[in-house]
Amino acid sequence: MDRITSRKNAVITHLRALGADSAYRAAAGEFLCDGYKLLDEAVKSGAEITCVLWKEGGAGGTAPCEKQFTAPPELFDYASPMKNSPGPLFAVRRSECSAVETVRRAIVLENVQDPGNVGTVLRTAAAFSIDAVVLLGDCADCCSPKTVRATMGAIFRQRVLALSRDELGAWLKRHGLKLYGAALSARATDIRKVDITHAAVAVGSEGRGLSPELLAMCDGEIIIPMDARSESLNAAVAASVLMWEMARENT
Amino acid sequence: MDRITSRKNAVITHLRALGADSAYRAAAGEFLCDGYKLLDEAVKSGAEITCVLWKEGGAGGTAPCEKQFTAPPELFDYASPMKNSPGPLFAVRRSECSAVETVRRAIVLENVQDPGNVGTVLRTAAAFSIDAVVLLGDCADCCSPKTVRATMGAIFRQRVLALSRDELGAWLKRHGLKLYGAALSARATDIRKVDITHAAVAVGSEGRGLSPELLAMCDGEIIIPMDARSESLNAAVAASVLMWEMARENT
Repeated sequence: MDRITSRKNAVITHLRALGADSAYRAAAGEFLCDGYKLLDEAVKSGAEITCVLWKEGGAGGTAPCEKQFTAPPELFDYASPMKNSPGPLFAVRRSECSAVETVRRAIVLENVQDPGNVGTVLRTAAAFSIDAVVLLGDCADCCSPKTVRATMGAIFRQRVLALSRDELGAWLKRHGLKLYGAALSARATDIRKVDITHAAVAVGSEGRGLSPELLAMCDGEIIIPMDARSESLNAAVAASVLMWEMARENT
Repeated sequence: MDRITSRKNAVITHLRALGADSAYRAAAGEFLCDGYKLLDEAVKSGAEITCVLWKEGGAGGTAPCEKQFTAPPELFDYASPMKNSPGPLFAVRRSECSAVETVRRAIVLENVQDPGNVGTVLRTAAAFSIDAVVLLGDCADCCSPKTVRATMGAIFRQRVLALSRDELGAWLKRHGLKLYGAALSARATDIRKVDITHAAVAVGSEGRGLSPELLAMCDGEIIIPMDARSESLNAAVAASVLMWEMARENT
């Protein structure tokens, strides 16, 4: 296994760029992961690991990958987006979603910017067998290090699509899915009174909710009933309760 | 309104200590909040605001409090636990939970250390009319700035109790509540098959789950059904789905 000692090494610059730059991630078709837990999940899920960097003085380990390197702690920390990570740091190939697919249930996030929330939604979606997570508008990058960490490995299993509103319309039509929008409005129907077991449900940002344009595309507005003094739920919690309701009668 | 210019001013040292030190918070019987949203929630909830610090050059405002001060941005930032907060920074008196109370539904967190998760649980509990949140063991302080921020104001309305396991036993008995433990074990019963509408439900840390001692106190173990490849949910998501199930048939 080669030992890297320079910040200018191509592996180091590649890993750093994968951690910092979403355009670079998209162009490379790879994303960055950190830690033994995610490595274990990547291997179990059969993800293609393109490169691994081990931290010298750490616990070490093995990975099914031909390109493996070690680096002294200072250089490892320079390459890693995390502080004081025990490592390893590794890159994974983004898998293409196959074109032919059956989608019975989907969750749509619009302008959910917090990477922890997006990652948590992916994690819950995988747990509740939601067929697809659709990211619309200005959502956190599903492959940023913070998002990936919050998925706890679901990133390797969960189908995620980044679509425009127009593309979403065509996609819903193709799968014969109705779209319901989670809205904090008086005309929204209590989720216990709507059948969302085969549907797409959209959740917006906590501050502003869904855009008028997306609401106009919806077949109906739905609401999680709440105490009158509560204005809203955390976006990942709202999405998770909705996904649980979608899965509740089906599993 | 007095202008403060020194880091040694008693108001500044008080606010800084409230932000940084949970023992100081407990001794003072106050906690620290930041921002217009929380101020609005505090006022609406009738919380006792003991002190307000406004940032010079900010939007300003009013608060129902006799002790109000301004500080130049550098000094304000020194007092605040947040980076680049627009303010205001204010302290609120912790209200005592009244001794006589009716508790029909409670969520118990054991060793949930992430303040964002604890705050999110408080927020969801308030939304779903859960009568009490009980913190056991090494949970994040419900009055730390990060927790308070994640509650989005629910900290002013939601009953929270920090108890030992022995105290929890007596408290459950007094309220005639059964205790169910969320456990990822084969012997746990699917939550759809257990009546948790009038009960206490315990959720542990993501890494280790509930302690054997707490599980031994439980009347039963329950599980949120999940895809076989998913190991667990985020602790706040798990607690939120459980609280939704507790509230679902009741509201």
